[in-house]
Amino acid sequence: MARYLKRVSKKIGLDPGTMVHIGKKDAMAIQIRLFDYDAGHYEERPVTTFDDLKPYKDKPTVTWLNVDGLHDVETIAKIGEIFGIDPLVLEDIVNTAQRPKMEDFGDYLFIVFKMIYSWGDKGDIVSEQVSLVLGTNFVLSFQEEPNRDVFETIRQRIREGKGRIRKFKSDYLVFALMDSVVDHYYLVLEKLGDKIEEVESKILTDPNTMIPRQTHELKRDIISLRRQIWPLRELLFELSHSESPLIEKTSEPYFRDIYDHAIQVLDTVESFRDILNGLQDVYLSSVSTRLNEVMKILTMFSTIFIPLTFIVGVYGMNFKVMPELEWRWGYYVLWGVMIIITVGMVTYFKRKKWF
Amino acid sequence: MARYLKRVSKKIGLDPGTMVHIGKKDAMAIQIRLFDYDAGHYEERPVTTFDDLKPYKDKPTVTWLNVDGLHDVETIAKIGEIFGIDPLVLEDIVNTAQRPKMEDFGDYLFIVFKMIYSWGDKGDIVSEQVSLVLGTNFVLSFQEEPNRDVFETIRQRIREGKGRIRKFKSDYLVFALMDSVVDHYYLVLEKLGDKIEEVESKILTDPNTMIPRQTHELKRDIISLRRQIWPLRELLFELSHSESPLIEKTSEPYFRDIYDHAIQVLDTVESFRDILNGLQDVYLSSVSTRLNEVMKILTMFSTIFIPLTFIVGVYGMNFKVMPELEWRWGYYVLWGVMIIITVGMVTYFKRKKWF
Amino acid sequence: MARYLKRVSKKIGLDPGTMVHIGKKDAMAIQIRLFDYDAGHYEERPVTTFDDLKPYKDKPTVTWLNVDGLHDVETIAKIGEIFGIDPLVLEDIVNTAQRPKMEDFGDYLFIVFKMIYSWGDKGDIVSEQVSLVLGTNFVLSFQEEPNRDVFETIRQRIREGKGRIRKFKSDYLVFALMDSVVDHYYLVLEKLGDKIEEVESKILTDPNTMIPRQTHELKRDIISLRRQIWPLRELLFELSHSESPLIEKTSEPYFRDIYDHAIQVLDTVESFRDILNGLQDVYLSSVSTRLNEVMKILTMFSTIFIPLTFIVGVYGMNFKVMPELEWRWGYYVLWGVMIIITVGMVTYFKRKKWF
Amino acid sequence: MARYLKRVSKKIGLDPGTMVHIGKKDAMAIQIRLFDYDAGHYEERPVTTFDDLKPYKDKPTVTWLNVDGLHDVETIAKIGEIFGIDPLVLEDIVNTAQRPKMEDFGDYLFIVFKMIYSWGDKGDIVSEQVSLVLGTNFVLSFQEEPNRDVFETIRQRIREGKGRIRKFKSDYLVFALMDSVVDHYYLVLEKLGDKIEEVESKILTDPNTMIPRQTHELKRDIISLRRQIWPLRELLFELSHSESPLIEKTSEPYFRDIYDHAIQVLDTVESFRDILNGLQDVYLSSVSTRLNEVMKILTMFSTIFIPLTFIVGVYGMNFKVMPELEWRWGYYVLWGVMIIITVGMVTYFKRKKWF
Amino acid sequence: MARYLKRVSKKIGLDPGTMVHIGKKDAMAIQIRLFDYDAGHYEERPVTTFDDLKPYKDKPTVTWLNVDGLHDVETIAKIGEIFGIDPLVLEDIVNTAQRPKMEDFGDYLFIVFKMIYSWGDKGDIVSEQVSLVLGTNFVLSFQEEPNRDVFETIRQRIREGKGRIRKFKSDYLVFALMDSVVDHYYLVLEKLGDKIEEVESKILTDPNTMIPRQTHELKRDIISLRRQIWPLRELLFELSHSESPLIEKTSEPYFRDIYDHAIQVLDTVESFRDILNGLQDVYLSSVSTRLNEVMKILTMFSTIFIPLTFIVGVYGMNFKVMPELEWRWGYYVLWGVMIIITVGMVTYFKRKKWF
Repeated sequence: MARYLKRVSKKIGLDPGTMVHIGKKDAMAIQIRLFDYDAGHYEERPVTTFDDLKPYKDKPTVTWLNVDGLHDVETIAKIGEIFGIDPLVLEDIVNTAQRPKMEDFGDYLFIVFKMIYSWGDKGDIVSEQVSLVLGTNFVLSFQEEPNRDVFETIRQRIREGKGRIRKFKSDYLVFALMDSVVDHYYLVLEKLGDKIEEVESKILTDPNTMIPRQTHELKRDIISLRRQIWPLRELLFELSHSESPLIEKTSEPYFRDIYDHAIQVLDTVESFRDILNGLQDVYLSSVSTRLNEVMKILTMFSTIFIPLTFIVGVYGMNFKVMPELEWRWGYYVLWGVMIIITVGMVTYFKRKKWF
Repeated sequence: MARYLKRVSKKIGLDPGTMVHIGKKDAMAIQIRLFDYDAGHYEERPVTTFDDLKPYKDKPTVTWLNVDGLHDVETIAKIGEIFGIDPLVLEDIVNTAQRPKMEDFGDYLFIVFKMIYSWGDKGDIVSEQVSLVLGTNFVLSFQEEPNRDVFETIRQRIREGKGRIRKFKSDYLVFALMDSVVDHYYLVLEKLGDKIEEVESKILTDPNTMIPRQTHELKRDIISLRRQIWPLRELLFELSHSESPLIEKTSEPYFRDIYDHAIQVLDTVESFRDILNGLQDVYLSSVSTRLNEVMKILTMFSTIFIPLTFIVGVYGMNFKVMPELEWRWGYYVLWGVMIIITVGMVTYFKRKKWF
Repeated sequence: MARYLKRVSKKIGLDPGTMVHIGKKDAMAIQIRLFDYDAGHYEERPVTTFDDLKPYKDKPTVTWLNVDGLHDVETIAKIGEIFGIDPLVLEDIVNTAQRPKMEDFGDYLFIVFKMIYSWGDKGDIVSEQVSLVLGTNFVLSFQEEPNRDVFETIRQRIREGKGRIRKFKSDYLVFALMDSVVDHYYLVLEKLGDKIEEVESKILTDPNTMIPRQTHELKRDIISLRRQIWPLRELLFELSHSESPLIEKTSEPYFRDIYDHAIQVLDTVESFRDILNGLQDVYLSSVSTRLNEVMKILTMFSTIFIPLTFIVGVYGMNFKVMPELEWRWGYYVLWGVMIIITVGMVTYFKRKKWF
Repeated sequence: MARYLKRVSKKIGLDPGTMVHIGKKDAMAIQIRLFDYDAGHYEERPVTTFDDLKPYKDKPTVTWLNVDGLHDVETIAKIGEIFGIDPLVLEDIVNTAQRPKMEDFGDYLFIVFKMIYSWGDKGDIVSEQVSLVLGTNFVLSFQEEPNRDVFETIRQRIREGKGRIRKFKSDYLVFALMDSVVDHYYLVLEKLGDKIEEVESKILTDPNTMIPRQTHELKRDIISLRRQIWPLRELLFELSHSESPLIEKTSEPYFRDIYDHAIQVLDTVESFRDILNGLQDVYLSSVSTRLNEVMKILTMFSTIFIPLTFIVGVYGMNFKVMPELEWRWGYYVLWGVMIIITVGMVTYFKRKKWF
Repeated sequence: MARYLKRVSKKIGLDPGTMVHIGKKDAMAIQIRLFDYDAGHYEERPVTTFDDLKPYKDKPTVTWLNVDGLHDVETIAKIGEIFGIDPLVLEDIVNTAQRPKMEDFGDYLFIVFKMIYSWGDKGDIVSEQVSLVLGTNFVLSFQEEPNRDVFETIRQRIREGKGRIRKFKSDYLVFALMDSVVDHYYLVLEKLGDKIEEVESKILTDPNTMIPRQTHELKRDIISLRRQIWPLRELLFELSHSESPLIEKTSEPYFRDIYDHAIQVLDTVESFRDILNGLQDVYLSSVSTRLNEVMKILTMFSTIFIPLTFIVGVYGMNFKVMPELEWRWGYYVLWGVMIIITVGMVTYFKRKKWF
């Protein structure tokens, strides 16, 4: 959490519109890949110079410029210039501390949101900012890192010309990209769900001191997921009810579909939150119950042996005059008394249902 | 929970509109049953070939095609084609991970929601997806499994021509089907209510370590029920306020009625939630109170016998010079002292209201 | 809770509109009482045959038909027929598991809600369904049981012609009936409030194991009250903002008044809920505090006497060579040491503020 | 709480519009004070007969009739008659169990709300009902008791002609009266805030058994304050957005100002609620922590001395054959062993960070 | 909290519009600084007399009057007079207990909100009121104290003519001032976040008695932050959707941007609240778990040694007739028995998984 805030505080005092890259700096160069297609034709190539990009802006085919890496501010400024993007938008693209939102600039839509995936062995949840610019004939997509690629299946579909993607316009491409990201939310939730079930079964079988910690960490994950999915849901609502001519009537059912998915994701997150809150209660209850049992054992042992120990202590005294000590059967009588006391105690605890 | 997410993640990367069956795969073949009726006439038969289905689409009588089993994607695609259903709808029908929703496609309405019943000896809550397509003269219904049939009473009513069903149009059939499903929610709630009362009475009479677990499981059931009923409520609200010409004015009170039922179900679910939350507090309180009592017993025994044991220890010492040991009445005086201490202690605990 | 659900599940599979009495079956016959009045005239009589009821429907005087008992479905069907009431409404009247609601049928309004009173020595909260039908010149009222009569004061006012009731139209009678029911909510809340204060003062003076149970039962009462009052509040809002010509402009302030009362009742219920939630915390806190005190006593006794007992044990050993035992003042020195230890311990606990 | 409900239940069964005084009965007679002023002139006198009140109704100067005491129902009825007030309003004025509300009767506005002050040494929160009737040229104000006078500063301002009050119309007087009441809410909150801070600092320094009780009482105060301030806030919202010609455009900023104050009061009440909820957690945590420490002391003492006591017990046995007892250095060796055990235990607890 | 209320209660009984300085009184004199600029020209100077301020009001350049210190009520009144500000606004400016709000007075907008920064070594959160008046060609800004200057970077930007600020109108200056304040919220949240993480890691590694106190104090900070940020968010929403001609169309994206920031701040505050609530649960859980472990150790030691101590006590008795004492191998047999008991106990605890 604090890390994220630090990223923001870097910009304090700067003039708005100043492009400052806020985020991880990759050693790798920016990678830019161009796709240009319509139902019949298809072109794919890496972009190295910007001289030949200009004509793509107004070409009637769909052009997709896929930019991986945001640290090279100048390159992004140049792309912005070619496609006529407002400097305020470019500033938002390189600042990866954006809240998911959509802005309608008339001849293009700007959409920014988070891609989420679980990473590494421990399944830590990592999020990365994705920005999309949807123009009439082009889509610009910006990601932070090139190596985690959720868009590969879409590229495949474009290459192979299967499905609807080559027959539709640029808005369908935006849908496909967002859909692919939202689908990955399910994977993250799946992993989270597995972790919750693991903690759940541990609480019920073998509760240990790590559980409050694990539950707390899962809760933090849920809190941070909610913070990213709520605004995404709003964004998708706006998008699926958009008046913008860039979103064609025929594409609306698709956007409504991702909106439904976002709600489902949110539902699941809320359910997870409820379950986690419940788990903490279960843990506390079972710790209390165990304490109770431990104390019962201690109390049983103590209350049985403490009086007995007192009694044997009495006959360990060295008084000159202690008639019982002289009795012939004294020792045996005492054993009898002690057995009666023990049996009485055990009966008492049995009736109290202590074991 | 996690199981459900896994079902979804199967589709990641596929082109939307691709029909993929997500759900349980039945060994049994799909079962299709056709009903065709109006006030005067009635026909019922299983459907094996699709050649003779075509005319039913536009016949002025009400046609109900009842499909059990979703794994045979091709059959469903064929039915969709005959009745002119959009591929996006067919995709939703076979994907059983839908959130309850209603979509108006102009000449037909698509409704998808969950049927819930309690299953097996332990009364586990099972849910199954039901999809309905309401056209002017036909209703298509799709279920996952054929063996749990809540629609049998409706078939009976059609066969016998009793009640309103044969006199009304297809929208009334949709109402009857949904009503029958929602009525089954009451049965599930009834069982849940019984289980809650059982846990409740156990907490108050014989609290044991299984209770936190049981309460937690009931809570999970409630959480998952809420997730399915909230969107159903919205769906029914939309339906009962629908502008669609497919829902006739005379049917509106009926839909309003199921809407009322859904609210009542939701009210009950919320009440159950509140009660369960309260139960956990009651459990914790009674565990704490019991611990308190156990500790009182331990403390009473300890504080009475510990000083006495010390005293008899003193006179068990082997010092050469211990004048008390020589006294004639030493032993009896000591007993007196010990009795006084005991009485004092007991009085003290009585005044503290410990027993 | 479960009982109420069982009542509903009786109807599963039936055709809507089928009148099925769901509720308690009284041995007594239905009692029907007719009032007919305007400012100048007044008639009251029991109804035994239905032949002479017909003309009352359109008479310009106000006619009030007060029906006690719902199990005789045919009688109610006949009354419905005479006054032109829709079968769906009659079905709702005899099914006492309705959610409070209002429905506008153009020439009459149908209102159904719950009467609540506390019953028996233990003040259990009992609810009974009341249905009202408001026509231009008539009011039909239906109750489950005749013996708990909250409407008697209204009958008196009609008989004596005091107050406004005889000068106003049928809508004012509906207001008077509803007002009388809502006023009884205050009585129930008063009793509930007394019970809460009782539990409250017990927690603070003499907390015992019955308190979690009692608090839980009060909470359940509150939960079930809320479920009945929330929809009543909505109903009254609709009624006081109704566009129906059956509610005259001059009556609106009266309905607004009951609406205000319903809000006040709801406010009180919510306050009770908050107080009860707080009580559970107070109980847990005071149990914990008491445990703390018990443990302090145990710890004080143990930590003082355990070392002393060890010391006297040492000098109870039978080693051949134990020089201290031979000393002249050994025994007295030991007492000195033990007194010093005790004083030290007590001082320590005093500084820790343990007593 | 229950007291308030009892006041209401007195009216059950009465015809609405019947004036019944519900509230405290003062031995003192009603006190009525008349103010009549405009920018240039000013008149103040007690009112004893009602004969000369009539002309004030339509006089273009502002007339303020300040009535203290509500138990003399007839006097209030007479005033109502003179100024043309609806009997329903008069009924509400004398019934001091109203929910704060505003009603627009065309040529006058009726406003009823609560005055709150803390009373007595213990600072109990007392509330009193204030009713205002705002006509074109007059303001009627009704209070329950004359001795707690928050309006004195306003009277002074009228007498001295300072500030705006004499230059404005009757709506400004209503504003001044309400403003004065709402300002007193701050005083109550200030006292509550002090009490909360007191409890807060006690919990952190010297938690005792009175704290759950005090926290609970503060919570009840907060709950009852919320119940009175929420509707006041709504009332002030309506008033500051009123369409009534009685509220002049120039007065709107003033009403908006009190509305802002009411929100601020509500914000503070909500904050207090959150803090109090937090306090209960802090109390429970610190009780648990203390218990933990007490148990650590007990456990340390017990685990160190219990084995030692066992060992000395062994050598207190009287077996004929116990070789160790005969050893020359047996006694000293044993002391060595016991010291080693003790050091070992202490090291163990140190490593566990128990002290 | 209470301090803030005391500030308000100073004003009770005063005529509204009376300017009373409520807040800290600085020994320093008020400092006023004038900026006057447009794209081409720039003037900056301290203001000592007010004679030459008049012409700035209507000059087409942007004039910024930056007033530090509010205790000199007359100076502020004079500034108000020169720029034609309503006395009600001036009253709000000097009363530093305002709730953040915006008011549109036609030819100027009045905006009041809180600047928040963490102060001192302990990072206490301090808030200060900032008031802005936006006219066509001028901006007046009022702060409580001159020494905490968040506006310095803006002055620099004006002086150096860098960025957009000199090219835009007065509304952009207001944006820049507010943006600078909101950016400081991030710094405060960053510090808060660090503190929370500190407490978090302490709970999980070394929980001590200070933690409930620290958590509670962080919660109080969060509660008071929420109280100040919620109305700020509303204010910014109004501002970014304002119809006022003072806010130019081109400035709207900027205001929308701060609005987004305010939402992000609020999101973070809510997340912090959730995390803190969770932390308290984690603390309680880990205290309970530790208690459990302490009790296990006590119980293990007690239950092993208590029976053993009893046994050795038996053979310490002085009965004349105790055959076992005479046995040759008695002592060794007893050791055997005691070892068996000990091994049995340890096995039992092992099977219970106590260590």
